[in-house]
Amino acid sequence: MTEMFSNRMAGIPRSFIREILKTAQETDIISFAGGLPDSNLFPADELVIATNKAFETSGRNIFQYAASEGCEQLRSYLADFCRNRKGVAVKKENILITNGSQQALDLLGKVFLNEGDDVVIEEPGYLGVIQALSMYMPEFHPVPVSNERMDADRLKILINKRHPKLLYVNPNFQNPSGITYSDNNRKEIAGLINSKETFLIEDDPYGELRFRGNDKLSFKKLLPERTVLLGSFSKSIVPGFRLGWMAAPEEVVEKLVIAKQASDLHTSHFTQKIIYQYLKNNDMDKHIQKITKVYAQKCQKMIECIKKYFPMSVSYTIPEGGMFIWVQLPVSLKAIELFEEAYKNNLIFIPGDPFYLKRKYINTFRLNFTCVTEDEIETGIRKIGKAINNLINFEKEDRDERSFNFNGSVQFGDR
Amino acid sequence: MTEMFSNRMAGIPRSFIREILKTAQETDIISFAGGLPDSNLFPADELVIATNKAFETSGRNIFQYAASEGCEQLRSYLADFCRNRKGVAVKKENILITNGSQQALDLLGKVFLNEGDDVVIEEPGYLGVIQALSMYMPEFHPVPVSNERMDADRLKILINKRHPKLLYVNPNFQNPSGITYSDNNRKEIAGLINSKETFLIEDDPYGELRFRGNDKLSFKKLLPERTVLLGSFSKSIVPGFRLGWMAAPEEVVEKLVIAKQASDLHTSHFTQKIIYQYLKNNDMDKHIQKITKVYAQKCQKMIECIKKYFPMSVSYTIPEGGMFIWVQLPVSLKAIELFEEAYKNNLIFIPGDPFYLKRKYINTFRLNFTCVTEDEIETGIRKIGKAINNLINFEKEDRDERSFNFNGSVQFGDR
Repeated sequence: MTEMFSNRMAGIPRSFIREILKTAQETDIISFAGGLPDSNLFPADELVIATNKAFETSGRNIFQYAASEGCEQLRSYLADFCRNRKGVAVKKENILITNGSQQALDLLGKVFLNEGDDVVIEEPGYLGVIQALSMYMPEFHPVPVSNERMDADRLKILINKRHPKLLYVNPNFQNPSGITYSDNNRKEIAGLINSKETFLIEDDPYGELRFRGNDKLSFKKLLPERTVLLGSFSKSIVPGFRLGWMAAPEEVVEKLVIAKQASDLHTSHFTQKIIYQYLKNNDMDKHIQKITKVYAQKCQKMIECIKKYFPMSVSYTIPEGGMFIWVQLPVSLKAIELFEEAYKNNLIFIPGDPFYLKRKYINTFRLNFTCVTEDEIETGIRKIGKAINNLINFEKEDRDERSFNFNGSVQFGDR
Repeated sequence: MTEMFSNRMAGIPRSFIREILKTAQETDIISFAGGLPDSNLFPADELVIATNKAFETSGRNIFQYAASEGCEQLRSYLADFCRNRKGVAVKKENILITNGSQQALDLLGKVFLNEGDDVVIEEPGYLGVIQALSMYMPEFHPVPVSNERMDADRLKILINKRHPKLLYVNPNFQNPSGITYSDNNRKEIAGLINSKETFLIEDDPYGELRFRGNDKLSFKKLLPERTVLLGSFSKSIVPGFRLGWMAAPEEVVEKLVIAKQASDLHTSHFTQKIIYQYLKNNDMDKHIQKITKVYAQKCQKMIECIKKYFPMSVSYTIPEGGMFIWVQLPVSLKAIELFEEAYKNNLIFIPGDPFYLKRKYINTFRLNFTCVTEDEIETGIRKIGKAINNLINFEKEDRDERSFNFNGSVQFGDR
């Protein structure tokens, strides 16, 4: 059978992250691994009410097949959202409803990529984009992200040399590093691709989860005709519905709709109608405030615990929003070894390796703070701290030789 | 922008069928075009109860991210269903939940197809399979289906000459022709591919909608290790949830899960939990009996009207189940011209052309009988009959020269 599978499947492993997540579900473990929202913050009662309202207003129509583009009312709502909240000039016709942002990436792969086409991604970056686009067998070119920016010099060289078809960015509270591109960096990047045949994917699932500071410029505003903006209800309202959306130029939407029809005809009309009723009858600003307040507290708690329990030789990012903190160990340590050590103590996180295209035995790792309690944060970070110290002691013979090397890929914490 | 799109998108039009369906939604029209179930038969009250039950039993977990494979309880239910109803030996581990059968086709394309691989499809056949698999740029080879069979001689030649990677069949109440493969034909086909490196896709969305006669042998039973069986809740319960499933050998499921993760992480956990509650607490046999009784009546009504209003030179299939009747005009007529004529009278159906790979100006067309009332059937078939007569009269100068040519691709009605 094996020889029958397509070339694209060769060497693509099951998602390491999702495998770890399965472990988290099965056993009594503290997990900083997932990118899961806090289920206590799902507006459960409001969604039950919205469901009944949707049954009431849509009648039997709610159960029937529907348009590939998505529910008209929801598309209009999202076009308004883009205009009012992001200053992006899009209409209903620019919006396509997807099964979460992950499907948006798959559809973009279908519509844009031929085998061997060049695609620029972030490093460290979101594994899901590699998984989705790998199906169309492009050549990936990673560009480092660090502090408040993507490395524009490296990007410029790549653009001039490879003329990449796609550039993928996750500029707000990036997964996995938690960093946010500055406005200047965004303008710089937009300037670099403005005159080129490159299409930009602006993936923004966390954008609404800002704890502090001001919203940054959307690439969709800087480069409206060359950008597709991806949004999701998974982080702000409910992931289990699998609802996301894309805002793209109309001629791109036209192709995306064909790809959507081929992929699964359309996204569930039922869940679209429910989310529309939810959005219509609830104060989203208030809901977002509620979430960000809790996440900001948890983030703060985690940073305090890191300061308390991690050795001084460890650095970390301080995100302005989102769900992740990125931690960097001394160069001689491997996050995968730390993972093994922590796992023995019923504690998991994601070692940095899967966020890099080829590099292995990385000394960085990702911590999620949204899906754990403050008590779990205290216990968990303490355990990781202990495990780090164990690893350092184990290697103490060569300790004097160890030097800092931050890879230029993270923003440092204030210590 | 156009030059940036991938090669796979070149020349793939938006689904003609879905474009026609949009017309149907927008205007006051009688539509025999869709493949839509009768919305009056959706178990709406029971689904509302199931939704509340799902909220009650799953709690907040119903809104969270979930496993790519699908909900465990639903997978177990489906494995039981395959064993008990189809005599197919599969376990929960063989089942993957998808966004309808259309996504199953997309995932199979991802997992099996390299550019240029050979794929055998039915002719006339389901447009959706061409759309889904086209994304992976195989070479399609159509094999005629007619009466109670796929043309095994033609298939044998193709298998020996091209060693196709995939063979796609829709053997029960086929879309579009309404025909059902006989047991002998199924055994013949299974025998042909048993010793070859061909994997069989048995697409069975309509299998439960049998009006008369006995269930036929499943290919999954005949060739368990070489077949993936595709099922759907869209025709039997509710299409708007977008829930389908596949039963495949475990090593294929493993690859399919990777493709599923890359495509959209997982299918909505929420709708899976609702459908599971529905299945658990309702008598499915009774529900299916209710649907098939109504569809059998509508089918009978349409056949009576065809006898009454269509000229003697028109032939048609008499399906044992499903949703479609396939009609063949005299060879000199083009179904697309009939469509234009009928459309002027607010009446639509699907001309045969999109069900063929390359042939144009086909003299066959598809009628759906499930999504219309008996009155609409009477009015609509009368209008089509009138339009056919108009076309025949328009061409009556050369009427004497017209001869019957049934293309060997349909089962004839009893007149």
